[in-house]
Amino acid sequence: MTENPPIARTTVIVELGDRTYPIEIGPAMIDQAGELLAGRLSGKKILIVTNKEVNRLWGDKLRRSLIAAGYTVATAEMADGEEYKNLETLSKLYDACVEAKLNRSSAIVALGGGITGDVAGYLAATYMRGIDFVQVPTTLLAQVDSSVGGKVAVNHRHGKNMIGAFYQPKIVIIDTNSLSTLPKREVAAGYGEVLKTAILGDRDLFAYLEKNAQAVVEQEADALRYVIAACCWVKAKVVAADERESGLRAILNLGHTFGHAIETLTEYKVYKHGEAVAVGLIAACNLAEKVTGLSPDTTERVRKLVEAAGLPTRFPDFPVEKWKEALMMDKKNTDSGVVFVVPTSIGEYCITPEVSLSVALESIETLTI
Amino acid sequence: MTENPPIARTTVIVELGDRTYPIEIGPAMIDQAGELLAGRLSGKKILIVTNKEVNRLWGDKLRRSLIAAGYTVATAEMADGEEYKNLETLSKLYDACVEAKLNRSSAIVALGGGITGDVAGYLAATYMRGIDFVQVPTTLLAQVDSSVGGKVAVNHRHGKNMIGAFYQPKIVIIDTNSLSTLPKREVAAGYGEVLKTAILGDRDLFAYLEKNAQAVVEQEADALRYVIAACCWVKAKVVAADERESGLRAILNLGHTFGHAIETLTEYKVYKHGEAVAVGLIAACNLAEKVTGLSPDTTERVRKLVEAAGLPTRFPDFPVEKWKEALMMDKKNTDSGVVFVVPTSIGEYCITPEVSLSVALESIETLTI
Repeated sequence: MTENPPIARTTVIVELGDRTYPIEIGPAMIDQAGELLAGRLSGKKILIVTNKEVNRLWGDKLRRSLIAAGYTVATAEMADGEEYKNLETLSKLYDACVEAKLNRSSAIVALGGGITGDVAGYLAATYMRGIDFVQVPTTLLAQVDSSVGGKVAVNHRHGKNMIGAFYQPKIVIIDTNSLSTLPKREVAAGYGEVLKTAILGDRDLFAYLEKNAQAVVEQEADALRYVIAACCWVKAKVVAADERESGLRAILNLGHTFGHAIETLTEYKVYKHGEAVAVGLIAACNLAEKVTGLSPDTTERVRKLVEAAGLPTRFPDFPVEKWKEALMMDKKNTDSGVVFVVPTSIGEYCITPEVSLSVALESIETLTI
Repeated sequence: MTENPPIARTTVIVELGDRTYPIEIGPAMIDQAGELLAGRLSGKKILIVTNKEVNRLWGDKLRRSLIAAGYTVATAEMADGEEYKNLETLSKLYDACVEAKLNRSSAIVALGGGITGDVAGYLAATYMRGIDFVQVPTTLLAQVDSSVGGKVAVNHRHGKNMIGAFYQPKIVIIDTNSLSTLPKREVAAGYGEVLKTAILGDRDLFAYLEKNAQAVVEQEADALRYVIAACCWVKAKVVAADERESGLRAILNLGHTFGHAIETLTEYKVYKHGEAVAVGLIAACNLAEKVTGLSPDTTERVRKLVEAAGLPTRFPDFPVEKWKEALMMDKKNTDSGVVFVVPTSIGEYCITPEVSLSVALESIETLTI
């Protein structure tokens, strides 16, 4: 192995007492994974959980780095797709753990997107009552959102993420180069969560996105590193304050109440999660104009950024009854109305009182196709 | 509902910071379950997980008490037996949670023995990333051991308790009356763990057992309450010091290394767990005579208590190779030998250095049938 040239790296710390861990962000981080793990794991045996495509693209690089650092490495591929994020896939992965002779001091490394991270994380949380876990997210969505914060889960036939745990990784390794092999639509979808984070908690990031959209879209290394680090930093602060989602953490659902409803109404077939969130952000701004007096200018700035990223700014209409059903599905809602997270300005938010369905739907009338 | 007469109750506190919880021990505790839960649960919806037989014997009593205290109660029966402690049973129980419309503030109550507690606890740990959990153990084994300490799990085809978590209950409610409906052999098996606990950490309890064997066997209420509380207290101390089994907690395996090997060698068909542990305690004493100079008198006192409880004091012989395989299966062992927890006197213990297989087997030569 040749030596790596010096490269820029940003570290974000997630402060969680004895579960504190770093997020290391930069180009070619996968080549340095082995060194980055030094002193963080209990043992030397690793099972990489990944999918076929990501394994083909990045598996060898990761294995080389881990092996060079003295780790014994096995790899288990799982099928990609929400429909495989279930107990059956898990059961096969437990087999893979046994086959790889993992013991209590071994580690699981998730290499892939959000689904891989969720399943591998749950595997790590429950194999032998919990072994070391490392996230190496390779999609923008996973890098700025799902890999940070310790929410791991699989689906049950009655609900997404119904079986899960809060289980923190020992380290998150984010290689910005990995986005170069990601389909454009996936990058854009991840950008939906970036926008959400900027609106929620970082007006500097929002301003940066308004000025540097091009650099981000073209995946200029420093731009990516700045944007991803900024998102991780906002999320890390929220997670540190409310690890187990008893309150504050719900604010991360900005744009998600409408977003989830739109995903449900279109049966998860039309929009990617980040796309639904992006248009959900505009919906949340519209609602905020009504209930918190958000300036229409702000809504317009958000809409422009959504549009510039090639993300949807409108969604199909559905009968009121369908909307009601879809909005009420959210675990956080009660019978008397729906609670939303909405911006009060860029970088600030509030949680609405229960909003009646009619007010909620009025606020999105102008957004339907 | 008529008022309950005043009854004696002992409370043992498991000190675990913000996860601290009480164990309430006494007769007719099930009748008071509703009151005991006051202020401990997030919500008012409960799913009782139990098995058919325990449900028939104690289900109505528990439901009456919970309903009188204002809880909404659903019940899910699971099949009893180690072979049902798996992902399939769990999957059905997740369905039951959905059917009972449990949400994040609902609770799971385990009513039954160790298997019920393990599965229901894992269910509570993972449904919606963790909801409130209550243990109502109805076997002596579960009361003195498995219900305390937060180890929950299901089996995978490659190993017992391979899929699990550390998840503490909000309260453990131990009704000593529930032992009255337990088969004698089950009570005796639980007594194996009582003995273990006394040898490990409570010479007063050991002396009490030597003097009051009859009162315990006849299930005299105060005797049971004292014995169970003493065991819970020892276990609570160990768990408080090492919740996630990174060190000290391993001492609870006194008698278990030989015990597990004997269970494995007899394919789990001959001995109940507590029976194997009981004879394993004698084996551990024999080994302790060799490696830590334990007095043979102590071994004899242990043997007498095992015998008095109607528990096995000998076990079948097997070829050396089989022993080796069975002893090496233990997750804690390395290739160069086996580590044992052994008593140094009653109430004191040590962990041996790695003991070679020949020394281990020599020490139990006199115990084989």
